[in-house]
Parts: sequence; structure tokens; C-alpha cells
Amino acid sequence: MSTHSAPAPDPTAGAAVKAADRAHVFHSWSAQGQIDPPAIAGAEGSYFWDYDGNRFLDFSSQLVNTNIGHQHPKVVAAIQEQAAKMCTLAPGFAVDVRSEAARLIAQRTPGDLDKIFFTNGGAEAVENAVRMARVHTGRPKALSAYRSYHGATNAAINLTGDPRRWASDSASAGVVHFWAPFLYRSPFHAETEEQERDRALRHLADTITFEGPQTIAAIILETVPGTAGIMPPPPGYLAGVREICDQYGIVLILDEVMAGFGRTGRWFARDHWDVTPDLLTFAKGVNSGYVPIGGVAISAEIAATFDQRPYPGGLTYSGHPLACASVVATLTAMEEEGIVDNAAAIGEQVIGPGLREIAERHPSVGEVRGLGVFWAVELVRNPETREPLVPYNASGPANQPMVDFAAAVKRGGLWPSVVMNRTHVVPPCTVSAAEAKDGLAILDEALAVADAHVVG
Amino acid sequence: MSTHSAPAPDPTAGAAVKAADRAHVFHSWSAQGQIDPPAIAGAEGSYFWDYDGNRFLDFSSQLVNTNIGHQHPKVVAAIQEQAAKMCTLAPGFAVDVRSEAARLIAQRTPGDLDKIFFTNGGAEAVENAVRMARVHTGRPKALSAYRSYHGATNAAINLTGDPRRWASDSASAGVVHFWAPFLYRSPFHAETEEQERDRALRHLADTITFEGPQTIAAIILETVPGTAGIMPPPPGYLAGVREICDQYGIVLILDEVMAGFGRTGRWFARDHWDVTPDLLTFAKGVNSGYVPIGGVAISAEIAATFDQRPYPGGLTYSGHPLACASVVATLTAMEEEGIVDNAAAIGEQVIGPGLREIAERHPSVGEVRGLGVFWAVELVRNPETREPLVPYNASGPANQPMVDFAAAVKRGGLWPSVVMNRTHVVPPCTVSAAEAKDGLAILDEALAVADAHVVG
Repeated sequence: MSTHSAPAPDPTAGAAVKAADRAHVFHSWSAQGQIDPPAIAGAEGSYFWDYDGNRFLDFSSQLVNTNIGHQHPKVVAAIQEQAAKMCTLAPGFAVDVRSEAARLIAQRTPGDLDKIFFTNGGAEAVENAVRMARVHTGRPKALSAYRSYHGATNAAINLTGDPRRWASDSASAGVVHFWAPFLYRSPFHAETEEQERDRALRHLADTITFEGPQTIAAIILETVPGTAGIMPPPPGYLAGVREICDQYGIVLILDEVMAGFGRTGRWFARDHWDVTPDLLTFAKGVNSGYVPIGGVAISAEIAATFDQRPYPGGLTYSGHPLACASVVATLTAMEEEGIVDNAAAIGEQVIGPGLREIAERHPSVGEVRGLGVFWAVELVRNPETREPLVPYNASGPANQPMVDFAAAVKRGGLWPSVVMNRTHVVPPCTVSAAEAKDGLAILDEALAVADAHVVG
Repeated sequence: MSTHSAPAPDPTAGAAVKAADRAHVFHSWSAQGQIDPPAIAGAEGSYFWDYDGNRFLDFSSQLVNTNIGHQHPKVVAAIQEQAAKMCTLAPGFAVDVRSEAARLIAQRTPGDLDKIFFTNGGAEAVENAVRMARVHTGRPKALSAYRSYHGATNAAINLTGDPRRWASDSASAGVVHFWAPFLYRSPFHAETEEQERDRALRHLADTITFEGPQTIAAIILETVPGTAGIMPPPPGYLAGVREICDQYGIVLILDEVMAGFGRTGRWFARDHWDVTPDLLTFAKGVNSGYVPIGGVAISAEIAATFDQRPYPGGLTYSGHPLACASVVATLTAMEEEGIVDNAAAIGEQVIGPGLREIAERHPSVGEVRGLGVFWAVELVRNPETREPLVPYNASGPANQPMVDFAAAVKRGGLWPSVVMNRTHVVPPCTVSAAEAKDGLAILDEALAVADAHVVG
């Protein structure tokens, strides 16, 4: 797919698209007067292109969702066929593609998480998982990590740990935040993975003791935190959390919206540590976002709670036929084409080694970490103190070094995923070794911009 | 489209679909062990059919979303074309169909509500509208009506007035419920529309006075409440609410998720009363739910709040290209084919007169009311006292009369929209006069079941 070349440039058309966008489209997470959204004309495989003749290698997978790449022909065909047959049907009916999508997901989820509640995306998946846990336990609180993102509807944003929560923080939402392990910036002053694991578990257990175990419905964790920095947990951490949950009858929710469906080189990130949650939330990679869909995989025990008692949640487009058809095609293609294995191989053979080499050459790279096609490059002003290249949640002039770095990457023909002081390396799971190497070479060059800010 | 006949029955295939559904699909708002979801094989125009040779005239429009009917060929073609071109792209970019969908919506929204924030559905639209109002005003509370439904994510379900809120009620969600006008069951003991209007406005004004105007960010109202009973407001009520909002700097949100895009025989229900809100939420009819999408239309004043200050909300699939392409095709087809006018004409010439005639013949019909293809038939046990045919939020044996009524309707070949003690008459906006008459005749016959419960 890397052979695709963009069609002839058409800057006039691009200007019209952009003008209409500026007149009528209100954008997510943005100061509307300060943005200049690039007009994009097309996309294929690992690439997308604008109207001015610029083609970008997509190291962001958009918002880390196009695991199968852009415009996978089998998924496109499945959407077209389903559109001809049945676009939409209410959630109260049984539909062939809805049943089949649920079956294929349940085949891949761990343990007895065999019932699938479909939503329109990740935020609604989290909303419903927490609701299930609260009704199942009869308890009010949910615990989540400070370094986390769980979505932007009210319950989901209150669970979120990053600054996007602040404007919507209810204080009274029944959420308590704790610190999850992150050795490079250890909240526990640990020096080894074992220490970090043990101290993080002790911190969680202590927090539960002081909050009151019988007040806590759920602990929700991204199996590998994504937007918060792609931090694979130390071995044993998730098993320890599982044990704490079992001890107190707390529901364990693993949020695999970003980490699931191939991103880490396994179907689910939890497969790396073989820990089975009670509820597992998903979206994004389940169909690469070709049609909006997400959901919750539910354990037999929690499903049984709603066997004779109505589940108090729903939505018009739950189990949407067009979306479900795209799920069936996506999972089938990923299986047939070995796409999850490709993600694992690219991570082990190209991205991991490549980033470690880059880290050695660039003083601004404090750490690289990740799995599969899910990596973070932590940029620092000072490799000794680990002071981030820009402060937490920086904007304006304070954030200029990262803005300059991102601009350099784009000039090189790569579309990066820049979050605070990090660049995440999150290409599609279908990325080829050659594409991955191309992308790393562009990052390598652009890192000179970051190196220039290193002190000491 | 009424000439379509379902393909040959295939009960074996239907049983397999249902078995897979029961094994893996977790359904909205249901006790999973008490449901028996019909397996549906196909749908076209005003009809859908199962695997056993049964075809149903769809007087529910699924969940009141298929305003353009099932499988409109122009919308299907647009989805297929867009699928071939670009299924998904992150919200940060400008995309031709995203710009065009926003432009076509803004063309139809009132006043200067010209900026469109896209979501995946109605609940997220409401979540974001309330967030915008809270940030814009800096105030914490939102007021909504007891007889209302606004969605099932945390903020939306707390705004909702119906019993689906109870299991998720946060008490601390910053929501205050008030009573909106409903003359047939007047909360204000009114006897005329004018009285109902004046007393409802006095009640709202008093509630605001005692809550403290400076604590109230928004009043959210379904322009015509939908699931709560399809109650067109008395003339002057919405204008009065607008005035109160202006007096106190409160943001007026009109929720047109169900009432919008043709349902009432106008593009928006608010067009009947010419009242302009500050924010207008939509979903469903905007593309008949062919691809999940919803959104908020934003006034110039509120948009300006987020001109230099980031809007604190977003979602991966905001302005989803496939969904936006279906919006463009839907609005274009509705315009070209006069579908909104058809809804108005069917309401005025067929459904309205037809239901009034039915009401005269059936003692169980307490009232019929509505606009366009958006009607409620209120069933009562006693026409004098207006005691509902089944109690509020009835289940089990207490609800049996409505279960029996619904079964009789389905046996007649009509799929009804039954809510508590009402049947809603909400066919597609494309319904023909002949289809509407057919459906009314089936209702007419089935009402014998309800009549048998009438006392006195």
C-alpha cells in the first residue's frame, strides 16, 4: 500500500473544504479561533494526503483507531454490502451481523466475558461498564488512575485523570483517583519494576482501606494507559489488582478502548499478563472506527445480575447493523491476514529496536517504552532530572518546543501523535517494516529540534 | 415501496440468528432472561420482515429514527460511495462531507446557530450542550422536565425525567426537575391551554427564583416531548421560557433529537412556534440513523466563548465522514422529495383525522395529540377520571393490558411504539397515505383489547 500516490493536487478544492469547515464545524478540544484544520482529500493503508500534494505516513492511526489501516478493501466491501441490505435496526431485534459481531468479539475476550453490550464508542462503553458495576455491587464509588483517559461524557470524563477532566469535574461524581505504576516518573520513588509494582499495589490497597472497600463498586484501568503515556504495567501489577478486587468484591474493569484489538501485538493487551477482568471496554480497533461502535464485554456473573432485572441503560444505535458488519469484516480480515502478529513483529523487530537506537543518539529522549505498535517517546529537557521538555499541560509559549518538533515531523512527511512532552509511535497494525523504518527515520531527524532544548 | 414483498421465509436461518443473539448480545433496557428478540431479515421503506414470512408496517420508525424510511436508495448509495472514498478521519481535520453536512444542518437551524459540533448520537449531544452551557455561564445547575428523555450517559440520564433515570440517579448531578405543560394531565389543575401555559410559566419562574437564577446554567426541554408522551406545548409556552431565559442569562437548550428533521412536519419542531434556542441538539432523523451521528447546533454567542478558550469536550468519531456523507444525502433527498411536507400532510390529512375518529369509537382512548408523523394515543381505564390503562412504570401483571394490546397490533401486521399506557403513532416521514390508513385500521381493530379494560 505504500506505493499509493496521491491524486493530482487541487488547492482550490482544499481551500473550499477548509472555508466551509471554518464556517460551520465546531471542533473537539479546541479554541475554535486558534485552529487551522488541514483539509484532507484521501487516505489508504498507512497514508493520507491533503489537497496540496502532501502525503503523510500516519504514525497516529488518526486517534489511535485505524488499526487495520485506511480503507481496507474487505471492510469497505462489507460496509457497502450491508448498506445495500440493512443500514439500521433498533436494538430490540436480533440481526445476523449483530449476533455474529458479538460472537466474534466474545471468541476473543478472556474468561467468561461472553455477553457483549454495544455502544457508539468508547466513552459510552465506559459509562455503561461503570453503571453495570454500580448496580451489580450496590456500591457508589469507582476508582481510576490519575494518568488515564476514559472518554468525555460525564461519568467517563470524571473517571479520566488528565487535564481534560477539569472543566467538567463534578467533584461529586463518586470517583476517587489513585496512582498507577509508572517507573520512569515513579509516584512511589521506586528504582526497579518490582519495587514499583509492590509499592503501587500497596498504595492501591491503602487507598481502598481508607475509602472503605464496601463503598467501592469498581476499579477501572486502561490495561496499558494510552493517551496518558503508553506505560505497560510491571509484571504482576494487574494480577495484584485482580487479587485486591477479589478480596473486596470490587468489579475490575479493564479499559481496552485504545489498547485492544491488535494495538499491543495481541488481541487484547490483557493477553500479555493473562489477567481476566469482570468487564472489558472496547471501541476503536474493533472496526478501526470505519463506523462508530464500541462496547462492553460482560462476565457471566455480572450478566446474571441483569437476567431477571432490567439493565438500566441503552441507546438507539446499540448493535448498529452497519457498524456490526464492519466489525465482522475487520476481525475476519485481521485473523486471515495475520495483522495482530504483524503488529507484534513490527514492535519487536523494527519499532522497539529502532526507538532504542534513537534514544541513544538523542539526549532529548528520556525513555522509550511500548509493545506492538503502541510506543511512547518521552522527551526531556534534562535527561538527569527527567524534567519534561514542556511542563504538564503546557500551552502557548511554554509548549513551543513540542509545537516546533511536531512541525518538523510533518515537514518530513510523517503525521505524529504528540501528547504533552511525548510523541507516541502508533501506526496501523498493518504497517510494513519499510514504512515503520521510514517513519522512524523522519522522527530521528526531527528530534534535533528537541535536542536543541536540552540543558546540562 | 409498499409493493415490496418479503423474500421466501427461512425459519432455520432465523432460529440461528436468534440463538447467536441469545448467546452473545446484551440488550438495552432489558432483563436479559425475559426477552425474546424477533430476528429480522430485511427492511424497506415503511416495512420490515422476519424470517418466518411476517412483514410489519413500521409505525415505530424503529426508535423514532428512520424518518426517511428503511433503505432509502440515495442514502444507501451515498454510504457506499463514501465507504469507497474515506470511511473515517480524525476530528482535527477538515473533510469535504463533514463541512457540507455541517453547512446543510446550519442552513436549517434557526437564528445564528451556525456552528455544528458532531457527536455519535443524542445522549452525547445533550452531554455536550449542557457542558457548553455550564462553561459559558460559569453556573452549575441545569433544569429539565419530569416528563422527558434526554439519553442514557451520566449527565443525560440525570436530566431525563422518566423512570430510566432512577438506577443511575446521582442526586448530586446538578439537575433540578420541573413540570412542563401537559393539559390532559395538568400538573397545575388547568382547564384551558392558556391556563396551562400561564401556570406552567409561573411554576418555572418560581422554581428559578427559589433555586437562584445565578446558579442555573441551562434549561433543557424537548421542543415536543417524545418518549414521555408527545405533548406539543401550548402556544406561547416556549416563547415564555425563552423570555425567562433571557431575563436571567440562562442558556435555552431545545432537544430536537426525536422531534427534529421532519418528524413534526417541519425541519425542526421549534419552527411551529418560531422560538430560537441558544443550543439545539439533534440525532436520529438527521440521517435516519443509517450511520450513528448526532450533534449540537451552537449560537454565535456561545461559540464565541470557545473562540480563544479550548472547548473541553470531544470524541474520536466527531464528524465521522461516513456518517456525514449519509447526512448530506439524507437532507438532500428530504428536500428534493418533499419528505418534510409529506409528514405534515399525512399528519393533517390522514393521521390526525383518523386518530380523532378512532378516539370517538373507543372508550379506552382518552386523548390523541400530535403533529406531523408524531402522535400519541393515550389509553385509559376510565375516560372520566383519566386513570391510565396501566399505572405509571407498570411491569409484570399490572402491565398486561398494554402487552396484550401490543400483541394484537403485531398480529395485525403493524409494529407499534408502545410506551407505558400509550401507543405512539410515529411512522417514517415518507409514509404514504395508503400505508398510514392501513396502520390506523390495524390499531382501530386492536383497540378492542384496550376497550375491554375500560370501567364505568
